[in-house]
Amino acid sequence: MLDNLKKYNIILASKSPRRKELLKGLDIPFTVETMDTIEEKYPNNLVGEKIPLYLAELKAEAYTNNLSDNTLLITADTIVWLEGKELGKPTDLIHAKKMLQQLSGKEHEVITGVCLLSKQKKVLFSATSKVRFASLTENEIDYYLEHYSPLDKAGSYGVQEWIGYMAVEHIEGSYFNVMGLPIQRLYKELTHF
Amino acid sequence: MLDNLKKYNIILASKSPRRKELLKGLDIPFTVETMDTIEEKYPNNLVGEKIPLYLAELKAEAYTNNLSDNTLLITADTIVWLEGKELGKPTDLIHAKKMLQQLSGKEHEVITGVCLLSKQKKVLFSATSKVRFASLTENEIDYYLEHYSPLDKAGSYGVQEWIGYMAVEHIEGSYFNVMGLPIQRLYKELTHF
Repeated sequence: MLDNLKKYNIILASKSPRRKELLKGLDIPFTVETMDTIEEKYPNNLVGEKIPLYLAELKAEAYTNNLSDNTLLITADTIVWLEGKELGKPTDLIHAKKMLQQLSGKEHEVITGVCLLSKQKKVLFSATSKVRFASLTENEIDYYLEHYSPLDKAGSYGVQEWIGYMAVEHIEGSYFNVMGLPIQRLYKELTHF
Repeated sequence: MLDNLKKYNIILASKSPRRKELLKGLDIPFTVETMDTIEEKYPNNLVGEKIPLYLAELKAEAYTNNLSDNTLLITADTIVWLEGKELGKPTDLIHAKKMLQQLSGKEHEVITGVCLLSKQKKVLFSATSKVRFASLTENEIDYYLEHYSPLDKAGSYGVQEWIGYMAVEHIEGSYFNVMGLPIQRLYKELTHF
């Protein structure tokens, strides 16, 4: 499938093991590369999907000078958006606990921005999924923090882990987007690239 | 977690590796048991969620005589419901291809019925997820049939496989329900059992 991409070396520039796993699921050859971490800062006036779109493009720009003729670079950024504010990755377990208490019993949005970049072309798109959490007890939150690793995850949770199983009542949109990559939309954009 | 279940031996009576994987994700001890396959027949007048509820109960009834005092039995059945008709498991690859052509470009429902059974109690519930498929080319359908195994799956597809990645545009409800078990709802029912 995706014969139009045969001329490209596809590079996923991401440290996320979830994104690697998801892209693998499309059965296309690619390699993973990660440069030094860029500082994920964005202008104060950005809201909603503008934030991960900005950051996905920023991550792609870091590679611009090293892009060879037949490279297709994929970068992405995922945020959790709750009541008009971004929840990024937690700084420590206390911060993670606070975030999970904020998400408990409410609906939030998970938004991923994706940038596809070659020497000739740049494509930017975002996808939004609505996620409704059940009300969590303090016991349940503590159990998750003790047995799993929330620190590398936007919003302090992995939907594919225990907490995604027991807390997520309802999703509207793409489940894989909540994991970190809107893979069906990506497939569609890749067929046109 | 789920200390109220400590007195039970939990048995998942299902041949589905997806259901086993999902129940494992709740971090509770259980064993898998499968009796001889029962014939999954239901009365003609049943529609929608009544069908998997009936079949989940039927599967549980097959164990009634062998239920010991401290057993909690979990059975489930999943159907794909498209335009007022049930799509079950395909009989062969030609049948599977026909089903996928029917699902292409349309929204369908995936409905799972679950039965929790002990000597003292029976709980039945169902969950429905809406799934919207992109339009698939014949090439894409043939690729899936050639590289994956649709024959043991209701509706001829596994949402956690390549086709779920490239075809599922939108989900409303539980993603895990589409895999075969509405795991958040099950967790909630288990906390009350």
